[in-house]
Amino acid sequence: MTPAEVRTRATGPTAGLAPGYTQANLIAVPGDWAYDMLLFAQRNPKPCPVLDVTDAGSPRTVLAAGADLRTDLPRYRVWVDGALTDEPADATPHWRDDLVAFLIGCSFTFESALRDAGVTPRHGRNVPMYVTDRECRPAGRLHGPLVVSLRMIPEDMVDTAVRVTALMPAVHGAPVHVGDPGGLGIADLDSPDFGDPPAGEPGDVPVFWACGVTPQAVLMASRPPFAITHAPGHMFVTDVRDAAYRLP
Amino acid sequence: MTPAEVRTRATGPTAGLAPGYTQANLIAVPGDWAYDMLLFAQRNPKPCPVLDVTDAGSPRTVLAAGADLRTDLPRYRVWVDGALTDEPADATPHWRDDLVAFLIGCSFTFESALRDAGVTPRHGRNVPMYVTDRECRPAGRLHGPLVVSLRMIPEDMVDTAVRVTALMPAVHGAPVHVGDPGGLGIADLDSPDFGDPPAGEPGDVPVFWACGVTPQAVLMASRPPFAITHAPGHMFVTDVRDAAYRLP
Repeated sequence: MTPAEVRTRATGPTAGLAPGYTQANLIAVPGDWAYDMLLFAQRNPKPCPVLDVTDAGSPRTVLAAGADLRTDLPRYRVWVDGALTDEPADATPHWRDDLVAFLIGCSFTFESALRDAGVTPRHGRNVPMYVTDRECRPAGRLHGPLVVSLRMIPEDMVDTAVRVTALMPAVHGAPVHVGDPGGLGIADLDSPDFGDPPAGEPGDVPVFWACGVTPQAVLMASRPPFAITHAPGHMFVTDVRDAAYRLP
Repeated sequence: MTPAEVRTRATGPTAGLAPGYTQANLIAVPGDWAYDMLLFAQRNPKPCPVLDVTDAGSPRTVLAAGADLRTDLPRYRVWVDGALTDEPADATPHWRDDLVAFLIGCSFTFESALRDAGVTPRHGRNVPMYVTDRECRPAGRLHGPLVVSLRMIPEDMVDTAVRVTALMPAVHGAPVHVGDPGGLGIADLDSPDFGDPPAGEPGDVPVFWACGVTPQAVLMASRPPFAITHAPGHMFVTDVRDAAYRLP
């Protein structure tokens, strides 16, 4: 399927669809929260690398000509006062004229680069994600914990994984932590906060990257009056090639 | 001199002072223009790579503990309705409680990386800068042309210069143009809009990087009611090492 076909036809998680094209996290907030959100992203570029910001009320993005952010993700989450209130397949009835949408880089983008370098992270359908004990740098009214994604990497490939992803700062960049999960306050790797449990093999090392689910944890912690996000794993598929986010 | 000594003692241009420490462009705008400025930077990351944004009214930055942005640059420019009205050595009398200060990456930071790689750009005391015919992507009320800095590079070193700077996206990254100045609408290399004329030698190739003076051109084009910037060449010297902005 092409990215445009995924946007109009997909109904489930987007992992593996339109391979080679960048997928993005969505978070749309009311205009009077947009500065805090953009500043939060600037201060926390590893979990919140901004790929595009829309004009207020517009569902259009430079990342995909003709796409409509209200309808072109397979599933959304609607948040009121920091609480999840709905998970619709179409956000149009919830959209507001003052919403500003942020499209945030996703670690799916670096997985093809890892594979090209001979690193095949082992995980189930959806990568495991954990809320850590590290606080992001706050911005205005927004604050919250860093969320990370985990990939189990064979020990002799860890250096390569670090080097390859360091060259993709727009999609989370280098890992934030390698090894002991306790260093991030994660008690039990087998109980991720989002996604599927890890599927490592003996000799694998846990490698943690900052995760684009962080803004959703920030919503829960900071409780803005209203927001719309993608549902976990149900990303916005752009027309931009993964390679565009890879430095030479 | 240490960075702190430069901040308190320097009275002229900062090129070559506190070598190895990152210098930054300053642009401070009223709070109700801060979102447009931050969005403009997000949409134009090559000319406007944001290193830090202060809280409204605060002269403090995480880039240098204890520094005061109102006094610690050698010279400032004060802008009213897009026109330059003053060039004081102390911005305290002009500072306002609603000002938000943006510290923007500067190409000085990649010059040491270029030298480490054996590339010694030839230019006078101040690098030549040109207003181009390329418009930046607008954001809200802010719009204006891309400004570039020029370095004359020996032909056999151009590839190295591109590769080295591509790894420093927080300080303008790879060149925006190599070769014919006409491709950027520059009629006469010997008449830069800012800085000193180029000092190339036969066989050198003109290489153009996006420049942190772009926000000043944007002020002139967009005319916000008030702003304070650094005076050209009179940068804010941070406590952060140049190497911190270099990807591995």
